[in-house]
Amino acid sequence: MISWKNLDELDAFKKLSAMKGHVCLKEVMAGEGGAGRVARYNVPMGGGLSFNFASREVDDDLLAVLAELAKEAQLTDKYAALYNGEVVNTGEKRLVLHQLCRGQLGDDVIADGVNKREFYTAQQKKAADFAKAVHAGEITNAAGEKFTTVVQIGIGGSDLGPRAVYIALENWARQTGNLRMEARFISNVDPDDAAAVLKSVDIPHTLFIVVSKSGTTLETLTNETFVRNALKEAGVDPSKHMLAVTSETSPLASSTDYLAAFFMDDYIGGRYSASSCVGGAVLSLAFGPEVYDRFLQGAAEADRMAKNPDILQNAAMLDALIGVYERTVQGYGSTAVLPYSQALSRFPAHLQQLDMESNGKSVNRFGEPISYVTGPILFGEPGTNGQHSFYQLLHQGKTVVPMQFVGFKKSQCGMDAVIEGSTSQQKLCANVVAQIMAFACGKEDEDRNKNFDGNRPSSIIVGEQLDPASLGALLAHFENKVMFQGFLWNVNSFDQEGVQLGKILAKRVLAHDTDGALKAYSDLLEI
Amino acid sequence: MISWKNLDELDAFKKLSAMKGHVCLKEVMAGEGGAGRVARYNVPMGGGLSFNFASREVDDDLLAVLAELAKEAQLTDKYAALYNGEVVNTGEKRLVLHQLCRGQLGDDVIADGVNKREFYTAQQKKAADFAKAVHAGEITNAAGEKFTTVVQIGIGGSDLGPRAVYIALENWARQTGNLRMEARFISNVDPDDAAAVLKSVDIPHTLFIVVSKSGTTLETLTNETFVRNALKEAGVDPSKHMLAVTSETSPLASSTDYLAAFFMDDYIGGRYSASSCVGGAVLSLAFGPEVYDRFLQGAAEADRMAKNPDILQNAAMLDALIGVYERTVQGYGSTAVLPYSQALSRFPAHLQQLDMESNGKSVNRFGEPISYVTGPILFGEPGTNGQHSFYQLLHQGKTVVPMQFVGFKKSQCGMDAVIEGSTSQQKLCANVVAQIMAFACGKEDEDRNKNFDGNRPSSIIVGEQLDPASLGALLAHFENKVMFQGFLWNVNSFDQEGVQLGKILAKRVLAHDTDGALKAYSDLLEI
Repeated sequence: MISWKNLDELDAFKKLSAMKGHVCLKEVMAGEGGAGRVARYNVPMGGGLSFNFASREVDDDLLAVLAELAKEAQLTDKYAALYNGEVVNTGEKRLVLHQLCRGQLGDDVIADGVNKREFYTAQQKKAADFAKAVHAGEITNAAGEKFTTVVQIGIGGSDLGPRAVYIALENWARQTGNLRMEARFISNVDPDDAAAVLKSVDIPHTLFIVVSKSGTTLETLTNETFVRNALKEAGVDPSKHMLAVTSETSPLASSTDYLAAFFMDDYIGGRYSASSCVGGAVLSLAFGPEVYDRFLQGAAEADRMAKNPDILQNAAMLDALIGVYERTVQGYGSTAVLPYSQALSRFPAHLQQLDMESNGKSVNRFGEPISYVTGPILFGEPGTNGQHSFYQLLHQGKTVVPMQFVGFKKSQCGMDAVIEGSTSQQKLCANVVAQIMAFACGKEDEDRNKNFDGNRPSSIIVGEQLDPASLGALLAHFENKVMFQGFLWNVNSFDQEGVQLGKILAKRVLAHDTDGALKAYSDLLEI
Repeated sequence: MISWKNLDELDAFKKLSAMKGHVCLKEVMAGEGGAGRVARYNVPMGGGLSFNFASREVDDDLLAVLAELAKEAQLTDKYAALYNGEVVNTGEKRLVLHQLCRGQLGDDVIADGVNKREFYTAQQKKAADFAKAVHAGEITNAAGEKFTTVVQIGIGGSDLGPRAVYIALENWARQTGNLRMEARFISNVDPDDAAAVLKSVDIPHTLFIVVSKSGTTLETLTNETFVRNALKEAGVDPSKHMLAVTSETSPLASSTDYLAAFFMDDYIGGRYSASSCVGGAVLSLAFGPEVYDRFLQGAAEADRMAKNPDILQNAAMLDALIGVYERTVQGYGSTAVLPYSQALSRFPAHLQQLDMESNGKSVNRFGEPISYVTGPILFGEPGTNGQHSFYQLLHQGKTVVPMQFVGFKKSQCGMDAVIEGSTSQQKLCANVVAQIMAFACGKEDEDRNKNFDGNRPSSIIVGEQLDPASLGALLAHFENKVMFQGFLWNVNSFDQEGVQLGKILAKRVLAHDTDGALKAYSDLLEI
């Protein structure tokens, strides 16, 4: 029987709270003891990745308490409830089924009278068949010419996840002969966004995918109209160039305005939708369905590993538990994701939505105010760029920011140059390793301005190469981590009521139905 | 006589500290009182911009204390000391002269035996003449063909600022006929970064600018070699395609490997160098020297306005003071920069370096530990994208994050579409206005999950259009804000000792001179 309790009601959390400052990283990471931690504190996480947490502020005693906490919070049972189709998104009274797009982890999930696994795979197959027909030249433009480019029109989760995945694999695909079509993304209601993208593509050879679950997302519909106008001006029939990814009940679903429509449902939130048709349509067109399937398989492997009740064999659960300790006991307010891979340049932006929109909450899943802090601020940029930017604060600022590094042994493009006896890729890897140790152990200096206190925790996710499977596992790791953290904090990680008020007020501004400061601001912007 | 004191030694700061929670935003922004604040709390800031701080947590009483603080901390005098050429960067014993690239604010500054204003303008002229010759087809490739593309090779400040400026003006330039050459940027030592950029350009028609002050930045030299190899493979003579931006004493300065060299010096830090030749060379090539000059003029105007001792007429100083109140008295750990302009997509990344590298310090300018918190975490993405992402946490999370919005009345491209009775640009502006009020005033709801507490402070910078002059003023505003905050916190905002330790350890890893955990991590990455 699952019991949803606030974190501060759990006995193990009381124990954990007493362990503030339990580990001195500088001490435990010094000498051979540190080497031992690197060897022992390493967990496989699917897709060929491993999660090394040697430089996080834990030791065996603290891990034992985290294991108790995982058990008392029933993390494994709650995950099972989720993938078996219980209504875990209580606020919106919805199932939470993004994992089901990548594999079946438990019971058949029947909702709205259909087997949801069958529904998701059928939609994926539809998108795959469509992509294959486009690649084969069976679906073409009016002149019978092949489409070369695909543009996704969507915002939030319809944009950030798919865009991050596309950017992560674009060069890999180019290198391995898997780049079937180039992809672009229009998201912002700022007309300059759509204008710039339209200028960068060859409209007669471009497909556009409109992504909106409800078919009512104002930014997306606005950009759709913007694009339709441009297509007409270019002498192109929009209905032969546009696809819809939407829910079956949306006005877009049965419209003849689209060449095809692929369906999603209410059980996969925007930020979790890289694995649904929201990601599937554009990524299958860009890279081919086989590549997209490898991405899903990598994610599915991570999902399966997240079922393990042993926290030392479950990277997502362990990462979640340590993160809750850092946030709620240690009191660190933010966390940085620092991939040493240029291809992951937009992955932190995706994680920013995933994490902050899921767990940036002040009430528990029953709508009751909670007294402890929840999800952190998340930010990040690729290393080595960040090293020459904000790392100064991370090393010597007054604030401790836990870090999640990501590194790969091999580059994607395979081009390299030897300078001063090492390749670029070796330099890249040497830098991430050096940073972890610099953060953990610091360096004493009599000149206080050159002194490094150390004791700045980090972990690193290591892989062979960033490819579809490892990327899928990476994405799923963070989804599952956020889910487990939501269980721990007892928040609903699957709604986002915080976005509503702004929408309502924006409509009032556009209707000129304002007074007071809202009117004054509207006048200031001359709306 | 200037006296450099820690913030907590100042009487006005003691007063300020007693004013924690002084203003209830929700109350003061309600009704006509709020409208009055929007009208009154508005300061011009150069480049046609204005800084509206109605929704920050201040009132006239608090502003009076901030004015006292500004006076007691001698902000105006310290700024004068800086622009008159005193050694304000005490750790490195250097002058701080980035403002001098855009105008002369005080005395002649003579250093190393030269008038530095003359030195900077001479270098700008050299870069301008070079750019004009390239645009006129007087400097061409070996086949006598015009160069069409310029690639900047640099990292940190040699990358982030110039890249943010280029992206900010690219579409404006395309629209106004000022896009002379497209620009690309290679920064990361990850070989996939250079490989991808090289694949995206037409090498025989591309100029490459190597930017390294010392001529020893490992990432940049590595990427330079990488590019040289690619040029040779493409049958192109690198010395006819490469420029250097470096110091006069660097090995690059007199090398015959470059078509031309433009010089910088030690008095402009990387993160402040968009106004030096580091920005000047690439931006003059991309947009023409006249456009770059308008950018500098916008910045110069903001610099002049920052001289005003009246904080209500000095947006940078006021923003700095309010920011110090938020960080050090209110205890907010991070701040978000949220431009409602897709063109400013990489501006937050530039500000992240500018702010966090400058004021992410734990010792004062004399190297003594300080007891109060200093620079915040800074992050941001363009609105409306952020609204569909991390704004959930900003609205309903447990953490208050002060926000800096930026909005423009007109778009850059001028393309637009009317949907549901309003243009995209109107929707964009309506959204930013709505967000400010939603954050400030919130909305009560019996369903706690739909309740918005409000009291989340923000300000907005408003302009007519994002163009060279307004962008220059925007850039200078933040530089000057960061400078004033450094004066208040009594830190040296112009060094970055925190980046050194990682460099040393990375060299040891590459030399295989490691033991303990550093060796274990190196083995894990198979370096």
